Amino acid sequence: MHVDKLKELLEEVRTGKKSVESALRDLEGLPFEKITDATVDHHRHLRQGFPEVILGEGKTEDQILAIVQSMVDKGEDVLITRLEDSKSGALRTAFPAMQYDPCSRTARLITRPIKKTGKGAIVIVTAGAADVPVAEEARVTAEVMGNKVETIFDVGSAGIHRLMKDTEKIRIASVLIVVAGMEGVLPSVVSALVDRPVIAVPTSTGYGVSFHGLAALLTMLNACAPGVLVVNINNGFGAAYMASLINQS
Amino acid sequence: MHVDKLKELLEEVRTGKKSVESALRDLEGLPFEKITDATVDHHRHLRQGFPEVILGEGKTEDQILAIVQSMVDKGEDVLITRLEDSKSGALRTAFPAMQYDPCSRTARLITRPIKKTGKGAIVIVTAGAADVPVAEEARVTAEVMGNKVETIFDVGSAGIHRLMKDTEKIRIASVLIVVAGMEGVLPSVVSALVDRPVIAVPTSTGYGVSFHGLAALLTMLNACAPGVLVVNINNGFGAAYMASLINQS
Amino acid sequence: MHVDKLKELLEEVRTGKKSVESALRDLEGLPFEKITDATVDHHRHLRQGFPEVILGEGKTEDQILAIVQSMVDKGEDVLITRLEDSKSGALRTAFPAMQYDPCSRTARLITRPIKKTGKGAIVIVTAGAADVPVAEEARVTAEVMGNKVETIFDVGSAGIHRLMKDTEKIRIASVLIVVAGMEGVLPSVVSALVDRPVIAVPTSTGYGVSFHGLAALLTMLNACAPGVLVVNINNGFGAAYMASLINQS
Amino acid sequence: MHVDKLKELLEEVRTGKKSVESALRDLEGLPFEKITDATVDHHRHLRQGFPEVILGEGKTEDQILAIVQSMVDKGEDVLITRLEDSKSGALRTAFPAMQYDPCSRTARLITRPIKKTGKGAIVIVTAGAADVPVAEEARVTAEVMGNKVETIFDVGSAGIHRLMKDTEKIRIASVLIVVAGMEGVLPSVVSALVDRPVIAVPTSTGYGVSFHGLAALLTMLNACAPGVLVVNINNGFGAAYMASLINQS
Amino acid sequence: MHVDKLKELLEEVRTGKKSVESALRDLEGLPFEKITDATVDHHRHLRQGFPEVILGEGKTEDQILAIVQSMVDKGEDVLITRLEDSKSGALRTAFPAMQYDPCSRTARLITRPIKKTGKGAIVIVTAGAADVPVAEEARVTAEVMGNKVETIFDVGSAGIHRLMKDTEKIRIASVLIVVAGMEGVLPSVVSALVDRPVIAVPTSTGYGVSFHGLAALLTMLNACAPGVLVVNINNGFGAAYMASLINQS
Amino acid sequence: MHVDKLKELLEEVRTGKKSVESALRDLEGLPFEKITDATVDHHRHLRQGFPEVILGEGKTEDQILAIVQSMVDKGEDVLITRLEDSKSGALRTAFPAMQYDPCSRTARLITRPIKKTGKGAIVIVTAGAADVPVAEEARVTAEVMGNKVETIFDVGSAGIHRLMKDTEKIRIASVLIVVAGMEGVLPSVVSALVDRPVIAVPTSTGYGVSFHGLAALLTMLNACAPGVLVVNINNGFGAAYMASLINQS
Amino acid sequence: MHVDKLKELLEEVRTGKKSVESALRDLEGLPFEKITDATVDHHRHLRQGFPEVILGEGKTEDQILAIVQSMVDKGEDVLITRLEDSKSGALRTAFPAMQYDPCSRTARLITRPIKKTGKGAIVIVTAGAADVPVAEEARVTAEVMGNKVETIFDVGSAGIHRLMKDTEKIRIASVLIVVAGMEGVLPSVVSALVDRPVIAVPTSTGYGVSFHGLAALLTMLNACAPGVLVVNINNGFGAAYMASLINQS
Amino acid sequence: MHVDKLKELLEEVRTGKKSVESALRDLEGLPFEKITDATVDHHRHLRQGFPEVILGEGKTEDQILAIVQSMVDKGEDVLITRLEDSKSGALRTAFPAMQYDPCSRTARLITRPIKKTGKGAIVIVTAGAADVPVAEEARVTAEVMGNKVETIFDVGSAGIHRLMKDTEKIRIASVLIVVAGMEGVLPSVVSALVDRPVIAVPTSTGYGVSFHGLAALLTMLNACAPGVLVVNINNGFGAAYMASLINQS
Repeated sequence: MHVDKLKELLEEVRTGKKSVESALRDLEGLPFEKITDATVDHHRHLRQGFPEVILGEGKTEDQILAIVQSMVDKGEDVLITRLEDSKSGALRTAFPAMQYDPCSRTARLITRPIKKTGKGAIVIVTAGAADVPVAEEARVTAEVMGNKVETIFDVGSAGIHRLMKDTEKIRIASVLIVVAGMEGVLPSVVSALVDRPVIAVPTSTGYGVSFHGLAALLTMLNACAPGVLVVNINNGFGAAYMASLINQS
Repeated sequence: MHVDKLKELLEEVRTGKKSVESALRDLEGLPFEKITDATVDHHRHLRQGFPEVILGEGKTEDQILAIVQSMVDKGEDVLITRLEDSKSGALRTAFPAMQYDPCSRTARLITRPIKKTGKGAIVIVTAGAADVPVAEEARVTAEVMGNKVETIFDVGSAGIHRLMKDTEKIRIASVLIVVAGMEGVLPSVVSALVDRPVIAVPTSTGYGVSFHGLAALLTMLNACAPGVLVVNINNGFGAAYMASLINQS
Repeated sequence: MHVDKLKELLEEVRTGKKSVESALRDLEGLPFEKITDATVDHHRHLRQGFPEVILGEGKTEDQILAIVQSMVDKGEDVLITRLEDSKSGALRTAFPAMQYDPCSRTARLITRPIKKTGKGAIVIVTAGAADVPVAEEARVTAEVMGNKVETIFDVGSAGIHRLMKDTEKIRIASVLIVVAGMEGVLPSVVSALVDRPVIAVPTSTGYGVSFHGLAALLTMLNACAPGVLVVNINNGFGAAYMASLINQS
Repeated sequence: MHVDKLKELLEEVRTGKKSVESALRDLEGLPFEKITDATVDHHRHLRQGFPEVILGEGKTEDQILAIVQSMVDKGEDVLITRLEDSKSGALRTAFPAMQYDPCSRTARLITRPIKKTGKGAIVIVTAGAADVPVAEEARVTAEVMGNKVETIFDVGSAGIHRLMKDTEKIRIASVLIVVAGMEGVLPSVVSALVDRPVIAVPTSTGYGVSFHGLAALLTMLNACAPGVLVVNINNGFGAAYMASLINQS
Repeated sequence: MHVDKLKELLEEVRTGKKSVESALRDLEGLPFEKITDATVDHHRHLRQGFPEVILGEGKTEDQILAIVQSMVDKGEDVLITRLEDSKSGALRTAFPAMQYDPCSRTARLITRPIKKTGKGAIVIVTAGAADVPVAEEARVTAEVMGNKVETIFDVGSAGIHRLMKDTEKIRIASVLIVVAGMEGVLPSVVSALVDRPVIAVPTSTGYGVSFHGLAALLTMLNACAPGVLVVNINNGFGAAYMASLINQS
Repeated sequence: MHVDKLKELLEEVRTGKKSVESALRDLEGLPFEKITDATVDHHRHLRQGFPEVILGEGKTEDQILAIVQSMVDKGEDVLITRLEDSKSGALRTAFPAMQYDPCSRTARLITRPIKKTGKGAIVIVTAGAADVPVAEEARVTAEVMGNKVETIFDVGSAGIHRLMKDTEKIRIASVLIVVAGMEGVLPSVVSALVDRPVIAVPTSTGYGVSFHGLAALLTMLNACAPGVLVVNINNGFGAAYMASLINQS
Repeated sequence: MHVDKLKELLEEVRTGKKSVESALRDLEGLPFEKITDATVDHHRHLRQGFPEVILGEGKTEDQILAIVQSMVDKGEDVLITRLEDSKSGALRTAFPAMQYDPCSRTARLITRPIKKTGKGAIVIVTAGAADVPVAEEARVTAEVMGNKVETIFDVGSAGIHRLMKDTEKIRIASVLIVVAGMEGVLPSVVSALVDRPVIAVPTSTGYGVSFHGLAALLTMLNACAPGVLVVNINNGFGAAYMASLINQS
Repeated sequence: MHVDKLKELLEEVRTGKKSVESALRDLEGLPFEKITDATVDHHRHLRQGFPEVILGEGKTEDQILAIVQSMVDKGEDVLITRLEDSKSGALRTAFPAMQYDPCSRTARLITRPIKKTGKGAIVIVTAGAADVPVAEEARVTAEVMGNKVETIFDVGSAGIHRLMKDTEKIRIASVLIVVAGMEGVLPSVVSALVDRPVIAVPTSTGYGVSFHGLAALLTMLNACAPGVLVVNINNGFGAAYMASLINQS
């Protein structure tokens, strides 16, 4: 809440237009409102339409059920990430409209139509077949947030030509998400080919000194090519959220 | 070089409009041209006007001198990062117009006027006074790339109110760079307050288990709040380059 | 055993008031008595009433049964921590009065009434739902040690307002236990809001570079805000024990 | 600012007792006031009397001079930690009353008398001679915060008897700070002897696999004995701050 | 594609010997052709005859089936590595000619005869019985690539005499692959005995501070004896591929 | 084989007392014979009587069966360590005299009587109940090697008095094995009490930053008290082997 | 020494053709002779002509002087690596013919002409200017060992075209050494372009999470492309030694 | 103090043979006396004759001077380890009889003759010239403790024959100290050759992934060969102390 708004509110209290109780309620959450909320109009759809996101990992099925029920009661759409198949049964029974996707381990309960917005497409590229689940988490998230998404999977570090054959897709990209495990070279390579922000997602694909994604993460953070930013290992959701922020700004 | 262009070039060879030698020269660098080069017109200024960037660290003074001379000969502007004061002497003698800034350890030799472009400002926030050199590297880079830059330094993790007093600056931000060492909490906190992409730069500020910036890096990568992307420790340049990509897209 | 007591004992031997055998028995454990035992009267209840604590992890069911039996035979109360559900069956059969709580993985066999003591309440705060089991271990421990406990769960790093709505609880806090995984920011944030000792408990909640709680631990150890002390990852018991020491001192 | 206070303020605005401008000023810093500020009376001296603490490390001499000058202008006392001798010259020239202690690397500029408060003494124990600088940082901090401090230095892990000869000092301890490097065993040993909270400070003393204090830190975090909490390596200041919170609560 | 070839192609376009469409197809994959392809004649067999290699790990059974089917359709031979037994069932049903070896976790579908080539034999040495699966992966790979392979298993670090009794085998070695876990000493020892390139393969055999092969890897990288090169932990395939390159060059 | 022996052998060849074939056989293993074999008479029993030791971990049941069979065929006694219960079935069926102990995970097939030798007893001390399996591996190994063994289990770091009550056992110790996980303090403490070599065995007991025994290992390596040597985590066998070397020297 | 040779020697002793003393001298070094020494004729030049290599690091100037003097006395050529400029003074004074190169930190004292041998050239590629010293160590070593060497420096990960312009050099490569720091991507990229063994040398170039070369090392070990082997960080010497083995085999 | 002695003391008090004051003095240090002190007669010389050992590292010159003075005043001999040359000046001035050795960084002030004791010699072996300082620290310590010491330096991992030529020295070894950096293989190799306890000392010799001795340490801890125990990196003193315990037991 900005100073102008606060001043206005106090004036309303002073002149009796607003009761103390009503002002109290307005002030209660004050420090936690986002500064830019009121000023960024084109974000409105995002803020209103975007479902709450529940991290399924670490929660019991009962906890998740309760959260979803409370959201549904308020008419909110729901996106659950990192939800193991084994935990999705009761949810699907309770909410038959919920779509569960075992590859991306996401569950969606979307009732309102999603309007596509943004400057261009979010293009998601993966190095290998084993990186696809993380990429799918990103795809689902980005689509639910109202972005056009294109995917170019299984490019490999030795198969850049597959990427180059898809120049039509890349031409409309406003931001790319590049998902890779093992040595994690692909984001560097893509960034050298494309003048767009590249969000690099290391995955836990690999063995030995891949250290469950740490080696890929280090490669990406050390990338000589500027224009590569990095998220946590396997964090397809976070990459898509950021890509959406960039695409829709 | 896209298929259409290639086809056109071959047609010109076929019809004799272009000699084989000339076509050879066009094809030589072919695989390394950026895919998006021809299609992203608003990037043109950036690509043309942006000085080459030299990483000063690890190079001898003689190596740097030679690179700068060759760039100056071609009429290019120059930006050097991570240049120790002790290595800047001969450069400044050879190129009196070069501006060296010991805080950010950058040297600039800019002869063309920089035109400000982009959707908004890049706002650079630091947690503490010790993080300022990294922030200054980001500021110099972002300005040289033609962005409006605002800085909010020394916010601390306990002094968020300083940030909130600067809402005017934040209102015009299209992207924020948040620089922090030690526990590296600030990007998370800022991201919770602002609906803009946040680029987090861990710094080597701290002692003990800060592990020269590793702890801050981990904090930033683990941030619950989506909308935080991370670059290498102390990589102010990389953060600014990415911020510029986002601001100018 | 302090010098005065030792002198007294020797005097009794010298004067024949105490036999050599009796003195031998008194001296036997001498180096291991706590220095402060005799002088800290308000600790008496704690020392007498507090059940022995058995770390269930790493022990076989038979080992635990034997220890509990021997304690029950001496009339002692029992608290077992880190006891897997699968190991609790025989215990519950053998000691029907034993209360097993699968969430906190604790088992209690308390026969004496627990008297609440201490300057105020121990307030336990968690960042997320997945941190609750660790917090519950702390809660059970603190209550068994005779403290009033308040809990504020699922505050999140983005939901500080939930904490601020519970100011009544915090007002009576003499010490806070803050439990968080992932980036582990919450203890810093709480410490900036409250002038009370904060005991930070990192949890293994998270994925990727959370490194099973290591990232949260580093964040907490690097906290700029003084007034944050740290225990081992997932060590709810240790946090509660320390909190009790502080609350009851 | 608690709800009651906020309500009262709004009532004053409503009734005209307070102008909108004055209310605005009151509200400005609102989210950052400490929740417990108004309710913990015995903390008043601490909050009022305690000098601001400046972390000298990572700041330039000019930055420190400016901060100190601004604090002195406001009549505040000053404590600087981690201040290298080489950076202290200009400070001592500018503020002749400033006391610089090269062992603890602290500088103090205290003009108001420090009133001793607290339930007992803070007892600071070190394992070896090389741990003394960290212990001295703790001592200076604790004294400046108004605590009675006792020190038992150079106890070693093999020389517990030195500790036991100092039972008089320990008898009045309300909290102990135990400083140790290398294998970091001392806090465990002390905690087994004393029923008081023990704050363990690992130091970077040692070589080889001491890893600059990491081994000691791990030992302390893994301590079987509950009642040991840990701060960052070499963080004498943080330990003393926490000890003061406990001693004065 | 080298400049000469490119020039020739353009000449053919210019003179009408080649259509633009045909030239386009030739140029399409241009940047990705191997530089040395056309010039290294003795590699031809290798390039043509060597089956594609599929990394089974991280792929679903369906993904693998699809890849194999597409290769079989093109008449290619197939080698799959890191294929769990549990994933091999459907493959064996679909392709009855496929040979699955549970020890090396490889599956082969080779229809063309393999011609042995190379200067000598590839000799594979293991330290212990637990290292055999990795060595077998190397053996299968090397044989499929057309090399003569000799194995000397279970040499141990204390049983060099077994190696020395096999001097006949070693006499014909053109390159050795030495597979060892735990302290990983064997490659150093072998390299001191033999004037041939030694490819060291650390394995995850061991416990405690073997850190799943990391200790062996470090030993091998630190080997005083030059002539030892290292691949990733358990990477028998990579070692054999490299050995084949050396043997057949 | 020492120069004198070699000379003698050559003399015998020269004089015809020894055939070339017989000399060849003597020389064959030459570089691998232990230098001290011939000179350390009191070791003879050990060398002759000690069963071969098989590391069960990493070997298949079939591999182990084959090794045992070959040893039994030669009349050798057998000791297997790190043998999972699930792998012991076929062994016990094939060799009914084999004793399998699930706690220490050892299997023994000893047919010759073991003669106790050595200067004194090997005393094995454990910190906690969870360390017992490692201690038992040490006990079995030491007994099989012909040593008198005493055990003092579950001493804890807070219960040194149990150790002191067993002074009779310690009085006859020629070497101690101290087994501890978590913070691994016990070897330091024991070493400070006893003027005997202490072999420290870190165990993987613990959680969080115990890092599966790494923290205990570091503590032991950093021990201020000299007279503590360290083996790999959980390596009860290695500790006992070394203790036997010392006891029997 | 092989069995045949040994038999022959014993026969000579038996028949008196060889004295016992002479046989003793032959047998003395027996276990340490290289197995392949006698059988690999084309290695002779290498073994005879290659200077002994002294690792300068960690030795005092006096130690190095003594070793060099003893080698010169025996008429051997000398190569010293990792020799700091500050330690080279006395050497150059004592041996005026010694060539010291500060970039590669090598010193050579070669009196015999070096004959070039091998199947082709060793091509050394570096990613950046800061990697040149390591590459130069490799170049000096490879040349001294009698190999033709070509260098392609400063290729960068974004400037592969420089490599492709040098196809003439690559065409004659029998093995490549690729030197890179930071993210260490170059070896993967080169290996994808060239069907030759690639020896990857990580360098300590970089900052932050490059961890002094560790990140580059991990990238190289994780390389998806087979045909990449790795040496220790900055180990230009080891890479060249191995490359020479391959080139001359 | 054992129970018998304690009983006797109490009897003396009871019968008046000993005054309470005198008994108090006897009892004061009671818990810290070594259990085995009274019973291990052949240790007497060691305990009485062995100088106190001061760790010079981390202490100021003044601190060391004070400790030495106090020891000299009591007539004790002095051994200082890890004493930098730069700190030894004042010591040598104050105590002209003090012998400072810059290689081992030890200083000795021994006035009583050292009587050689022990079963045999302590043989100290080093891998390289750079390991000598650590070996010398061990030699000085072992000699001061009254052991016969033999050294075999610069054996290398490739030069075992130097060790085998010194069989006379090894024949009298009761224990060996093997000092090695880089890959740390030597202790394993020696242990395979010698049936004596081997104490392995990793050194910080090496570069890159030697990680300042960590790689060597891991190698030694993972040694397949039993009979190898390990001390901290560069801890020559600790190795010698333990070797002396073994040699003199």
